[in-house]
Amino acid sequence: MRLVIRPFAIELKEPFALSVGSRTSTPAVLAELHHAGLVGYGEVALPPYLGWTQAAVCQALERVVWPDDPDPLNLDALLTAAASALGDLPPALAALDIALHDLFGKILGQPLYALWGLDLARIPPTSLTLSLAAPEAIQRKARQATEYEIIKLKLGGPDDRALVAAAREATDRPLSVDANQGWRDRAAALDFIHWLAERNVLFVEQPFPARRLDDHAWLAERSPLPIIGDEAIRGMADVIAARGVYHGVNIKLAKCGGLRAARAMLTVARALGLKTLIGCMTETSCAVSAAAHLSPLADWADLDGAALIANDPFTGAQLIAGRLTPRPAPGIGVEPRAPA
Amino acid sequence: MRLVIRPFAIELKEPFALSVGSRTSTPAVLAELHHAGLVGYGEVALPPYLGWTQAAVCQALERVVWPDDPDPLNLDALLTAAASALGDLPPALAALDIALHDLFGKILGQPLYALWGLDLARIPPTSLTLSLAAPEAIQRKARQATEYEIIKLKLGGPDDRALVAAAREATDRPLSVDANQGWRDRAAALDFIHWLAERNVLFVEQPFPARRLDDHAWLAERSPLPIIGDEAIRGMADVIAARGVYHGVNIKLAKCGGLRAARAMLTVARALGLKTLIGCMTETSCAVSAAAHLSPLADWADLDGAALIANDPFTGAQLIAGRLTPRPAPGIGVEPRAPA
Repeated sequence: MRLVIRPFAIELKEPFALSVGSRTSTPAVLAELHHAGLVGYGEVALPPYLGWTQAAVCQALERVVWPDDPDPLNLDALLTAAASALGDLPPALAALDIALHDLFGKILGQPLYALWGLDLARIPPTSLTLSLAAPEAIQRKARQATEYEIIKLKLGGPDDRALVAAAREATDRPLSVDANQGWRDRAAALDFIHWLAERNVLFVEQPFPARRLDDHAWLAERSPLPIIGDEAIRGMADVIAARGVYHGVNIKLAKCGGLRAARAMLTVARALGLKTLIGCMTETSCAVSAAAHLSPLADWADLDGAALIANDPFTGAQLIAGRLTPRPAPGIGVEPRAPA
Repeated sequence: MRLVIRPFAIELKEPFALSVGSRTSTPAVLAELHHAGLVGYGEVALPPYLGWTQAAVCQALERVVWPDDPDPLNLDALLTAAASALGDLPPALAALDIALHDLFGKILGQPLYALWGLDLARIPPTSLTLSLAAPEAIQRKARQATEYEIIKLKLGGPDDRALVAAAREATDRPLSVDANQGWRDRAAALDFIHWLAERNVLFVEQPFPARRLDDHAWLAERSPLPIIGDEAIRGMADVIAARGVYHGVNIKLAKCGGLRAARAMLTVARALGLKTLIGCMTETSCAVSAAAHLSPLADWADLDGAALIANDPFTGAQLIAGRLTPRPAPGIGVEPRAPA
């Protein structure tokens, strides 16, 4: 078993603006796991706000040593050993976990959703995320994005109400909003959410800074819309701590360490009565397709990452009737594109 | 897809005595799911104390209607529909769930543990359960059961201390004890558990009646040994409610509705920091083998059900180095025996 690691610079189609800053590219790491004539593909994207660097992820992955005669179907043993070798670095584990799952599915000749017994009819519609922009740009993009059933707005600035009003004028599709920790005042947030609730908004992500548990709990107790934790939710412990603080959790492969962890977190969140959103970074069709296989387990999906990038090295899951749908091909179901 | 349902009377090798009564047979229901030339086998045993009858389970299973063109790999859709048709009857769902998983594995040509990516090296040793008996009989059986690494004693009567002392004299292997709700007094129970803790006992199952949450919470806070809920634990809601009341949970396919539910419960229990025991009824190699595939996810196993019965219609998982180990054959890995 041989792991090939490629640092990769994801180029965004348009600058991506959040309340915490703007960027035109995302560092990423691609992983290829070669075994018995097959290749498993994995990826993790590393937006700077997460605090994990491309170099650290590559260095950690270089440290992984495989057993002499690995059983690639023994995912638990391989991932447990790899997690221990990688230390506390979820994105490195995510890249490896996706590659191992892809290889696993290819060996068994089945797509992951089939091996997991999941029902593609339960894939929720995925939202298209519009980054912070002028109201006219929001309107133009919302009108153009006819293939998406839900539009997600990045908020957290002084013009939130104007942006939502603009989007609402341009489309009657449901919206979701993501404050990216940008709000500060409890009462103002609650007031705004009441206003949003009258405008066909589905949920609100991460209103306040992640560490402000009391503010989120106060808001969740009163909010007419579900309050979803994102920056506050990385691994399983955060899902368990979310009860009483959030109504739901945004689970992303890059944050939690890949498909094995995300699947367990989706199971636990549902059991605890939490709503689940499966999300992504600005990332290639590799990581987004992997997440799409899990999406029948989630209440909502926000898997538009590959639609936002200009240099996707893969083809994979496709938008069908607004749902990002895995290809019925073994593993995660992606194909490398021929180099341009 | 065609379901054949067979009521079956399991005959016990010896009368099985608990603090709640004794019996020489267990009613069961066998299920065969025929599809595309393959047969998936399922089973549920119905010890009377659970309160579910063989007739009710058979009648419920007769009501299941399959879609015209079912996709047997879409386990979630089939099980969700079946659960709804069966109503709130976990043992009926368990028989069907095992048969569907067996068929699923046979279609994919792989044992379930491989499809789940589980590590057989993590299978815990299974205990042999000795039912209530005179101290001499306990000693004889403990000495004979050389292939088991753990002996489980059924307690809950006036002679508990004498029985444990007798077993301890006969073997130095670890013991576990199951009071089957037979204890009444908090202080006496705690005193006894301190005595047990000095005698290489691993854990204590269901000391008091299941509904006595306060007594169990009081005991769990003080006990030097893990306190495990069994009769108190049926489905997922009971696992979640177990935090702060028990240190761990005994998960059985017959109680919770089969492999899908048990797997989710094992995931949730671990995430919540609960210990997990995977248990069984006095049942055939069919249901016991199914549980063995999940056992790498549990801390302890008590999968001796098929060893206690006289008319096992299947061969399946085998005891290897004290661990009940699934055969490396597709699905649950059982074979019907030729009729005698």
